[in-house]
Amino acid sequence: MARMIKPLANLYEQLRRLPGVGSKTALRLAYHIIDMPAEDVQHLATALLEAKGHIHYCQRCFNLTDAEICSICTDAGRDSYTICVVEQPQDIVAMERSRGYHGLYHVLHGALSPLDGIGPDNLRIRELFQRLQRESITEIIIATNSNVEGEATATYLAQLLKPVGVKVSRIAHGLPVGGDLEYADEVTLSKALENRREM
Amino acid sequence: MARMIKPLANLYEQLRRLPGVGSKTALRLAYHIIDMPAEDVQHLATALLEAKGHIHYCQRCFNLTDAEICSICTDAGRDSYTICVVEQPQDIVAMERSRGYHGLYHVLHGALSPLDGIGPDNLRIRELFQRLQRESITEIIIATNSNVEGEATATYLAQLLKPVGVKVSRIAHGLPVGGDLEYADEVTLSKALENRREM
Repeated sequence: MARMIKPLANLYEQLRRLPGVGSKTALRLAYHIIDMPAEDVQHLATALLEAKGHIHYCQRCFNLTDAEICSICTDAGRDSYTICVVEQPQDIVAMERSRGYHGLYHVLHGALSPLDGIGPDNLRIRELFQRLQRESITEIIIATNSNVEGEATATYLAQLLKPVGVKVSRIAHGLPVGGDLEYADEVTLSKALENRREM
Repeated sequence: MARMIKPLANLYEQLRRLPGVGSKTALRLAYHIIDMPAEDVQHLATALLEAKGHIHYCQRCFNLTDAEICSICTDAGRDSYTICVVEQPQDIVAMERSRGYHGLYHVLHGALSPLDGIGPDNLRIRELFQRLQRESITEIIIATNSNVEGEATATYLAQLLKPVGVKVSRIAHGLPVGGDLEYADEVTLSKALENRREM
């Protein structure tokens, strides 16, 4: 960019590194930030540093937390016999929003992806097995994503977990609620047929 | 958002206030920032504060600058008899990218918009007239946007500037270079016809 003054160019470069922020968006954001009240920019910068500084992984389930153990793990009202295994902390947010689950979680922080060099050792799988030894878990629900990596991770985990003697289940695949049959893709539809339930 | 820890919720709220950032994007950015190396988050926060702290308006043309007078105004190689009037500092970036203009600029910081309560006193119009008294300007090119507010501002400025005895021109409207006639809107096409030039 010709003629962009250094503090602006620097902010632009930093913003461009964020996911989903292209050069036009970065420029628009940079100009907006310069127009913002100084106080608001200070709030944003502080929020960035505090989020990064105070948030770390829960020592038990690897969810994000600003304490040693996250608020879900410490909640005595939750079913402590069930663990729902998810790929990322944001999946917990989605699960909690559904209000359909009241057990504990375990965050793998990724999914198996040999092409990207992500093997079992890069995920929090060992820690999941350590929990099985320490806690009295009766069921593990595998809620990894419904893509190639997520399915591979689910299959891998199921094979490892079965000999342990714990019940292993996978969240259902099917037609989204409110979804039109007409617009469903073939794979989803065949999964929905396969997993049909008697009424 | 249920169960979002405070530093994360705070960052999410701050990000959501940026233009074009909805709740899903804010959440994605927040999780990305927490996953970023601490050093990179520090760089981003510093870039924010430095851009806001060090950038202000050029005292002459009201472009953004980190000095008293911007690099365009201080550039002795530029034609100092022409002023191009634009709405925003980012318009200067676009003009400079075209490499078609070598004069000075004047940033109005907006356009006339009575419905939004923006009148002549809210724009840097008085400062433009002060420059006409101090500098030896022979032509003013009005390059406000080609929308209702931009056109109103251009007409208003032209009426004010003509009695001063300076040449006033407006950037041309017409078919974008590389644009198909077929896809041009009627208003652009009629403008292109109206402004036709002999070959």
